[in-house]
Amino acid sequence: MEVEVKFRYRDGVEEKLREIAELIIEKFEHDFYFNHPCRDFKKTDEAVRIRRDVEGVTITYKGPKVDSETKSREEVKVKVDSFENAAELLKKLGFKPVEEVKKTRKIYRVGDAIVCVDEVEGVGRFVEIEIESESIKDKEKLFEIAELLGYSRDESITQSYLEMILQEK
Amino acid sequence: MEVEVKFRYRDGVEEKLREIAELIIEKFEHDFYFNHPCRDFKKTDEAVRIRRDVEGVTITYKGPKVDSETKSREEVKVKVDSFENAAELLKKLGFKPVEEVKKTRKIYRVGDAIVCVDEVEGVGRFVEIEIESESIKDKEKLFEIAELLGYSRDESITQSYLEMILQEK
Repeated sequence: MEVEVKFRYRDGVEEKLREIAELIIEKFEHDFYFNHPCRDFKKTDEAVRIRRDVEGVTITYKGPKVDSETKSREEVKVKVDSFENAAELLKKLGFKPVEEVKKTRKIYRVGDAIVCVDEVEGVGRFVEIEIESESIKDKEKLFEIAELLGYSRDESITQSYLEMILQEK
Repeated sequence: MEVEVKFRYRDGVEEKLREIAELIIEKFEHDFYFNHPCRDFKKTDEAVRIRRDVEGVTITYKGPKVDSETKSREEVKVKVDSFENAAELLKKLGFKPVEEVKKTRKIYRVGDAIVCVDEVEGVGRFVEIEIESESIKDKEKLFEIAELLGYSRDESITQSYLEMILQEK
């Protein structure tokens, strides 16, 4: 499971982050979201996307959020050799292209957690703090990191970038 | 498109084949077929499978057969990094595991065509002759190779291994 909290970016956050974290990579991520042939992912709170970035191409399934306070959800990822073939495969299976999300992402590591500073086209800058874990209780670790960056837990945003972009439209 | 003809194996075929073809590889292929969450692939004549062999793991979509005389159909393939994650991804999307097909396959090359000598668990030995092409007319090339191996075109089998195995049950 991907246990994850998200906050709107505030001035000075990245300076605080640099004091406690190590920058791993800065990259451009191009995501293509699809809807299911016979389930409405908007209603079931699921998602499928193909991501293309400098590290390659992945197909990711995201399950419904399991927690009201965070963006935590099950994720299944598979790395693939071709964006075009992956998109064609999904289309042949009846999946419908919904929306693209483009962002520049700086990834920092803090212990076994990851902090992403994202600049998302059309919706702005955000900070995501995440950890791979079997237990939703690990969100507490994430709120501790968030506090070091100046965020209180009631500032946590549960909306995904996809939902934000669709809402903007 | 995968233009393909298939015949039941007969004694002596592989000897004839060795005179005109080059052996590329012999491998064990383990295929897992899935049905669609809301289409019945048996009725639509489509298929999705994950194949694991010595060369890696692929997800393949096969469209309906486009020709009454051959097994020709559209194919979309994507190479993936993990069998387990690919299977999990399909299951999460509502695809239902149907059947496994296990075979030992010897792959020969004849010009730009491929000839496979298959020993399929539960259904026997077969010869498949195939070529990647945009045109179904290329089946004539395949029937020419078949003739060199002693097959007439009315011996062509259009049933897939999956269909044979499901029929056996």
